Amino acid sequence: MEPRNPDYVRQVEDIFRKAAFVTDVGYELVRVTPGQVETRLTVRPRHLQQDDVIHMGVQATMADHTGGSAAGSLIAADQLVLTTGFTMNLLQAAVGEELRCRARVLRAGRTLSVVESEVYAVARGEEKLVSKATVTLAVLARKR
Amino acid sequence: MEPRNPDYVRQVEDIFRKAAFVTDVGYELVRVTPGQVETRLTVRPRHLQQDDVIHMGVQATMADHTGGSAAGSLIAADQLVLTTGFTMNLLQAAVGEELRCRARVLRAGRTLSVVESEVYAVARGEEKLVSKATVTLAVLARKR
Amino acid sequence: MEPRNPDYVRQVEDIFRKAAFVTDVGYELVRVTPGQVETRLTVRPRHLQQDDVIHMGVQATMADHTGGSAAGSLIAADQLVLTTGFTMNLLQAAVGEELRCRARVLRAGRTLSVVESEVYAVARGEEKLVSKATVTLAVLARKR
Amino acid sequence: MEPRNPDYVRQVEDIFRKAAFVTDVGYELVRVTPGQVETRLTVRPRHLQQDDVIHMGVQATMADHTGGSAAGSLIAADQLVLTTGFTMNLLQAAVGEELRCRARVLRAGRTLSVVESEVYAVARGEEKLVSKATVTLAVLARKR
Repeated sequence: MEPRNPDYVRQVEDIFRKAAFVTDVGYELVRVTPGQVETRLTVRPRHLQQDDVIHMGVQATMADHTGGSAAGSLIAADQLVLTTGFTMNLLQAAVGEELRCRARVLRAGRTLSVVESEVYAVARGEEKLVSKATVTLAVLARKR
Repeated sequence: MEPRNPDYVRQVEDIFRKAAFVTDVGYELVRVTPGQVETRLTVRPRHLQQDDVIHMGVQATMADHTGGSAAGSLIAADQLVLTTGFTMNLLQAAVGEELRCRARVLRAGRTLSVVESEVYAVARGEEKLVSKATVTLAVLARKR
Repeated sequence: MEPRNPDYVRQVEDIFRKAAFVTDVGYELVRVTPGQVETRLTVRPRHLQQDDVIHMGVQATMADHTGGSAAGSLIAADQLVLTTGFTMNLLQAAVGEELRCRARVLRAGRTLSVVESEVYAVARGEEKLVSKATVTLAVLARKR
Repeated sequence: MEPRNPDYVRQVEDIFRKAAFVTDVGYELVRVTPGQVETRLTVRPRHLQQDDVIHMGVQATMADHTGGSAAGSLIAADQLVLTTGFTMNLLQAAVGEELRCRARVLRAGRTLSVVESEVYAVARGEEKLVSKATVTLAVLARKR
């Protein structure tokens, strides 16, 4: 896939930096290529739901934001993306010391993008797919 | 709808209290009736995405946890609920000083429950529906 | 909700008439008001999945097309709607002599509409909610 | 993935043969391996929505039934699968002389399976991904 903004890496870094909630929860950007983004999270007690299970909201936020970043790697400098639809399947209980998310653009349309995000939990170094989401985003002109 | 646990209000309060992420983000329980739960969140700068828009993850976490609590109001004392599927439509940009979520059980099955969660943003006292989610939950026996 | 085309009833009838698959399966238009459409289907053996259960595809097609019709009741004469996203929860086995679907627009945007469709099975005169869908549609300019 | 029924191919053929709606619309089974199923449909005028576009319901029915068949390839002889949740993204207008669907089990649980189904339209021999669905199915004991 062809980025419309040659400076697409900085564009994605901006999407990350400007989102207070993403910084607050602790997600980190790992890798950006055109149409694909990887992120990570060091799991802390505050991310849990009960017992040792990581809250679904921590996974959903990660899948959404990483997906939006992947879509954002393909837009023009004067555009932005905004989630309009989100579906997620929780495949197994998310337990571990780290979460990793890999998002990949399925369709980069003129007005609508569709991205798939996979969330992996890493427990004692072993990575398991724990949830998978599809994010639909509107591609909009950025207001000056 | 008939609660299976006469002490269902405390059961829901427990689901809330035990979830570290829910406490961390700041959601509060407002009202619990059998099959229906309402929650609220005072919006802080840390909940935002960019400009003044509340992050989708803040809405998703709220819709999921309020939905799970509504399903949890109908289960037996030795059961628990776990989200297996989640779909959400973002209807308009969420802007305001407060979020409210109202969840209502659509189906309370023996092994599967389906709940609808509506998220409202309150701006200058006016409430607007900003997103709507459907949460699917597995009803499981609690491990001793 | 305000229809943009005063002749919105005929507009919806057109959406129905032109869809060969809808005619082929046998869906009928019952009622059209701005933002709301009701349809019905006389259940035949060809609509079944196994035993007496009505195939999920029969319900999905109905929810999608009734939803699209409801969105179509609010667009201008030179526009059309096209489904971009679809989510459905099957709440109980669909058994009966008739299916009814009621769709209601949740958001009628300039470029995106969101509609909820409820599917009811009627068995011996008694109506039960068997599935519920959310349809997301792009609002497009009709090509001449 | 390991099939629990050594005769899993016949099991899937049964799921296909017994579904009247699937036969009626014209879907054909192409290939069955454990956890993966491929189907096809020769597109006829009756499958269309308007102009030359294949109706979303034709794609949804195919994604659902092919997905259910993939899940069905992994269950025991005395079990059956039933769709409980379905999400689909329409990626581009489906136009062509043939539809192909490939489904792949993402999770084969004791009580819940999750399957991904991709639908391709073949126009003048060229295959394009037109929609992608996720099917959630309950795994149930077959009633005698």
